[in-house]
Amino acid sequence: MGPTVALAGGVGAARLLRGLVTIIPPEDLVIVGNTGDDIELYGLHISPDLDAVMYTLAGIVDEAKGWGVSGDTFHCLEMMDRLGFETWFKLGDQDLAIHIIRTKFLKNGMTLSQATAELCRMLGLKPKLLPMTDDPVRTKVLSDQLNLDFQEYFVRRGTRDEVTNVLFEGAEKAKPAPGVIDAIEKAERVVICPSNPVLSIAPMLAIPMVMDELRDTRAYIVGVSPIVGGKAIKGPADRVMASMGLEVSAYGVAKFYEDFLDHFIIDNVDEHQKRRIEKLEMKVSVTDTIMRNLEGSVRLARVVMAVK
Amino acid sequence: MGPTVALAGGVGAARLLRGLVTIIPPEDLVIVGNTGDDIELYGLHISPDLDAVMYTLAGIVDEAKGWGVSGDTFHCLEMMDRLGFETWFKLGDQDLAIHIIRTKFLKNGMTLSQATAELCRMLGLKPKLLPMTDDPVRTKVLSDQLNLDFQEYFVRRGTRDEVTNVLFEGAEKAKPAPGVIDAIEKAERVVICPSNPVLSIAPMLAIPMVMDELRDTRAYIVGVSPIVGGKAIKGPADRVMASMGLEVSAYGVAKFYEDFLDHFIIDNVDEHQKRRIEKLEMKVSVTDTIMRNLEGSVRLARVVMAVK
Repeated sequence: MGPTVALAGGVGAARLLRGLVTIIPPEDLVIVGNTGDDIELYGLHISPDLDAVMYTLAGIVDEAKGWGVSGDTFHCLEMMDRLGFETWFKLGDQDLAIHIIRTKFLKNGMTLSQATAELCRMLGLKPKLLPMTDDPVRTKVLSDQLNLDFQEYFVRRGTRDEVTNVLFEGAEKAKPAPGVIDAIEKAERVVICPSNPVLSIAPMLAIPMVMDELRDTRAYIVGVSPIVGGKAIKGPADRVMASMGLEVSAYGVAKFYEDFLDHFIIDNVDEHQKRRIEKLEMKVSVTDTIMRNLEGSVRLARVVMAVK
Repeated sequence: MGPTVALAGGVGAARLLRGLVTIIPPEDLVIVGNTGDDIELYGLHISPDLDAVMYTLAGIVDEAKGWGVSGDTFHCLEMMDRLGFETWFKLGDQDLAIHIIRTKFLKNGMTLSQATAELCRMLGLKPKLLPMTDDPVRTKVLSDQLNLDFQEYFVRRGTRDEVTNVLFEGAEKAKPAPGVIDAIEKAERVVICPSNPVLSIAPMLAIPMVMDELRDTRAYIVGVSPIVGGKAIKGPADRVMASMGLEVSAYGVAKFYEDFLDHFIIDNVDEHQKRRIEKLEMKVSVTDTIMRNLEGSVRLARVVMAVK
């Protein structure tokens, strides 16, 4: 089988990816990660989605949360609090090492792709992890009078605001990171991970060259629904889709991706939507999509790689 | 009593300073700190001597070591080690918050003085702490063929090298930080803390305007010997003085400072050197100079402020 490209957000994506790397040669996998959630805190460059993927594939992720380092402490953050800084973004002490080093690399003139490649090498990761772009793209969440940075919406305010629109500042002019377009072009299969379509996958689709290449590539593009039984498996995807006027269902996700998707994998509980989704001119497979543990991830990854 | 200025290295100085601030109004104290030991690690700007003073005066210092934050952990550093970085410089997790914020301030265009003032404000410190200069001055330790950065000599190689010379790169052209000269000029008393004369006080003396002002000021300049009974209370001062051809004694320290010192405080065990030191045209007081605890610091501080 030829190379596989996975478009990945954070936690949900990471869980599928850990399954993928156990069933295909990891060096045949190129992961394109969302950087619209990136944030600068205390002068440090933080890439939460890239980190969730790195930590998961390095086997050091906090399994319960799906992000952060297992068993991490928060002593540096406690001192930040004492100094009078806001500490709503939970940076662990081990986690901080990654942000400090990434920031140092960027300060030394590396691109985010180069810094990410070096961090992956240091963590012993075999798949290639590419940020979607080396240019700054920032996901902004609009809610009534508020214009929130993604992490303000997501972490600081706990997704409590009703989202009226989402913007990806800088995406229109952003160039895909080196290797992204080439990987999608040459891939045998492209996997759209079960991430939040509107907040985690859409930032990548907002980069014109990425969207164009997804439409053009001869790769077989397979998506997995993050909406099961009308609810998000994790996070606010259901509420955001609703408030933006999208149908909150596997069908709604398929519709969002209809321009380029060849095959959509939905959960058993959504089998009744199969026919309707097929009318969007894509194939549909029905399976258990909930990844409770590594076996669940491997089982779903096998389906993702087998469907045709 | 008018303003007091203290020239301070790290641990020994900090112990005297905590005594000084309990017997004089802290806002009447200006501390000038050594920055020749500053080091950049992982892209972070670290000022070990300023930190030892800040942590001690903030009451958060690790009392046993005299530096670092009490009860600190080293989880970030463990991740640095895992990533393949050298970790001989022991940066604690709480400690890191200070370095991260200092680095952010410098990156935002603040001078080291401004960053230090802001950190002191955040930690609730009342005395003014000024770095000796905002310009880069780096203490280099020469040993045979080796040209070592101070922290390489001091921490990494554990002061095991015989020191043949010490250089203060950049000192000749460095300008004292804003306020330093003015404070020394207007001080009623200048205190040379019991720090390593050759490695911690000499970097300040190597800045021409500082040395000139010490010679010119009408302030009464009082020093405390860091050498007691021919040995350094802490650190390698005795060995460094010996290898550089200086007499390893209270007398040797007095001689090193003879250009500007008005009064030297030596330990009871060195009373026999009193007459000899007096011949250097300075007064000499003899007392117990060992600061085992806060009471010891206060006792010595009272002597420092009383002698005339």
